[in-house]
Order: sequence, then structure tokens, then C-alpha cells
Amino acid sequence: MKLKHIVLSALVPTLLVSAGVAFAQFKKPEDAIKYRQSALTVMANSFGKIGAVVKGEAPFNKDEVAKNAAVVAMISTLPWQAFGPGTEGGNALPEVWSDNAKFKSASEKMQLAVANLNTAAQSGDQDAIKKAFGTASQTCKGCHDDFKKK
Amino acid sequence: MKLKHIVLSALVPTLLVSAGVAFAQFKKPEDAIKYRQSALTVMANSFGKIGAVVKGEAPFNKDEVAKNAAVVAMISTLPWQAFGPGTEGGNALPEVWSDNAKFKSASEKMQLAVANLNTAAQSGDQDAIKKAFGTASQTCKGCHDDFKKK
Repeated sequence: MKLKHIVLSALVPTLLVSAGVAFAQFKKPEDAIKYRQSALTVMANSFGKIGAVVKGEAPFNKDEVAKNAAVVAMISTLPWQAFGPGTEGGNALPEVWSDNAKFKSASEKMQLAVANLNTAAQSGDQDAIKKAFGTASQTCKGCHDDFKKK
Repeated sequence: MKLKHIVLSALVPTLLVSAGVAFAQFKKPEDAIKYRQSALTVMANSFGKIGAVVKGEAPFNKDEVAKNAAVVAMISTLPWQAFGPGTEGGNALPEVWSDNAKFKSASEKMQLAVANLNTAAQSGDQDAIKKAFGTASQTCKGCHDDFKKK
């Protein structure tokens, strides 16, 4: 599947340079909050669809899982540009800014985990998908536990 | 650039089968409205970044434009599954449902236009990007004029 090229040619470089993205692109803090929540909403939808397959609640369709994993992998690179200084609020805890190195590390862990999920999904190997999905889920949970309001 | 494979291997098939996606995946109409608005918000952000380059308000960076065009192309396939029967409301006019064939046609026109924009963006040809951006902008406007609340 060609979609794995997303990871190889676009995702990883973006991940590595994401700290360099200008935070000042949003006119108002509310715009940044809306953007990051929107990206995470779209990502969660596709991630959830893969989860339903992994949990046996939905039938396995290789193309659907591959598409959803590609969406997750691509969108996983986007929200972080919208957590810049001055954009506190929304569902984010103050620790996003007060312990930003830890937040950044957690976000990178997630991006790598969903890149691996995408690789597994493009292969169509259901065992690999299940394993990669579990690992990715843990990175979501870890970040939500520490940085998202309950 | 490998990103053009997104269009060739994932986007167009998705476009062609998008009418077959189950509309019942959202538990509540509000979830569908939130999802489609989120997808369109993320897409508009990347599209706007390309627009700033096209208008000369931001410097041309081939990789950035290519990444944003790939995001737009991929996300352009997503909102439509969330305009199913029973999900009326949000910023959508009733014509989305009462004239659904026209809405579907407009959405497909947009998806093709942004797929072309993505192809141009991966090539890095600034004239082609400008032209494709203009065409894509018109498809956004056309659909908003007819189907989105002012």
C-alpha cells in the first residue's frame, strides 16, 4: 500500500520539526483551542473506528482500517501547533504549559505510536494492528491522564 | 514526492464509494455536527495556509504547501459521512438534505479540486498551485453559498 509513504515521507519529518512551527498563526486563543479540539475530534473518530474492529465490534475491512490509520497518522501531527503560549484553556490542563517538555514528549510518543499503527494497518496484518492499536491507546490515555481536564 | 500517492491510492476510491459510508456511526446528531464542523475547521486551516502563500502573504515553502495540500486532500473525504439523515442543523442549510444530490455533487467537485491542488502542490509548480488553489476556492464558495448558513 502506498499510504505508508505518508509516514515515511511526510509524517516523521513533520514530527521532528513540529517544535519549529510558528505558534502565532492563530488570531485569537479561541481559534487555537477550536483548531486543536477539532483535529483531536477527527483523529479520535478514525481511531475509534479502528478500535471497534480491534474489539470485534465491527468487521475487519482492510481498506477501511488502512484509510482510518492514515487519517490518524496524518492528523496526529497537527494539534501541537495550537498549544502555543497564550492559548491556555479549553480542555487542556495548565501542565501543558508548565511542564511543556513532558507534554511534547507525550505528544511525540503518540505520533510515533500511530505512525506504527499506520504501518501495521497498511500491511493488513490483524495481529500487528491489534498490538499497535493497544500501544497507541496507551499513549492517548497517558497524555489525557496528565494533560486533559477530567 | 510520495504524497501524491494519497490521491492515487486512497482519495479517489474513497470519493467514489463515499456515498456508501454508513451514516449511522454517530450516536447523536450533535456528534455528527461536531465531527463535520471539526473536519472542515482543520481543512480550512491548511487550505488557508496555502492561500496565504498564493496571495503572497507568506513565503513559499514547498514542503509546507505540500503537507498542507495533503492534509486538505485527505480531510476533504471525511465530512460527508456526517451529513446523514437526522443530522440536520449546525451551520448547514436544510437544502443539504432537501437537495442532497446537488450537495453531493458540490462536495465531489470540491474533493476533485483539492485532489488536483494536492497534485500541483506535490509538484512544487507555483503557477499550477495558484491555478488549482483558485479553482478549489471556487468549489468551497459554491457549496457555502448554497448550503451553509450566512
